[in-house]
Amino acid sequence: MTAGMGGLCCIRPPCIYVSLREATYSYGNIMNRKAYTVSVPGEGYWREADYTGIASGRDTDKFKDTSLTPIKSKVVDAPYVEEYPLVLECRLMEAFKLGSHTMFVGEIIDIKADEDVLTNDKPDIQKIKPILFSFGDRSYHSIGPRIANAFSIRTPPIS
Amino acid sequence: MTAGMGGLCCIRPPCIYVSLREATYSYGNIMNRKAYTVSVPGEGYWREADYTGIASGRDTDKFKDTSLTPIKSKVVDAPYVEEYPLVLECRLMEAFKLGSHTMFVGEIIDIKADEDVLTNDKPDIQKIKPILFSFGDRSYHSIGPRIANAFSIRTPPIS
Repeated sequence: MTAGMGGLCCIRPPCIYVSLREATYSYGNIMNRKAYTVSVPGEGYWREADYTGIASGRDTDKFKDTSLTPIKSKVVDAPYVEEYPLVLECRLMEAFKLGSHTMFVGEIIDIKADEDVLTNDKPDIQKIKPILFSFGDRSYHSIGPRIANAFSIRTPPIS
Repeated sequence: MTAGMGGLCCIRPPCIYVSLREATYSYGNIMNRKAYTVSVPGEGYWREADYTGIASGRDTDKFKDTSLTPIKSKVVDAPYVEEYPLVLECRLMEAFKLGSHTMFVGEIIDIKADEDVLTNDKPDIQKIKPILFSFGDRSYHSIGPRIANAFSIRTPPIS
């Protein structure tokens, strides 16, 4: 599925979350397998990502529909998307029901990144070109230019 | 403070989270007041946002240091930043300790946006120009061009 809500939420252990409705097919899969992966599509895949956010795995084989390739993770019991440049493989740590959505917090067990999105052996967001999803007006956006290094302004900035 | 980890996590009720270390000054404030606000800086404020992510409110008055203006929220017991274009005012709903970081889930009680970041009366990410933070390589990035409407590819895309 395509998750519209997710992100980093802890450093030690390194954790991410995704928030899903109970009605989704993935909800049951994650509860049963106690694991999930997050495959981050580059912006060239926005059509595939949009379609897989609408169709349900209960009704159709979304890998076949999109010609994307499922690869079985070796570290957790879940597949990931071969064509997407960055993959996070997670063991389910917590499931917090908040209301319409349940927050699945997963410990990141491994990260896979395509060689061509690395800079100095680290995933580079300027090369991954992830799709940014704006929830309020239901739209996708690109990443723009790099602004600056973080943790660089150690004295009050002069305005 | 500047939080590096946060995002939307539920729709009904509408919730966001921020993940903080227990050692931060904000951690105690949120626990005591059962409330917080999130003020989203436009990219022109990256120096202010970077500085307020390094300095601690225990040691210095960061509003004074940056010439930013604190405004007392009328709906929750916390201040927000007048100069930042988008503000979310939250009532603390849950505090989940995950490890190094605790996830503060807040119900969004009100949203304030500057007139000049609205399109059809809704906050427009292209006008807000939020700062994107890449955790791995500690860098800030701009938002780029709008790609497309979401929920538009209802049949399998042709590749």
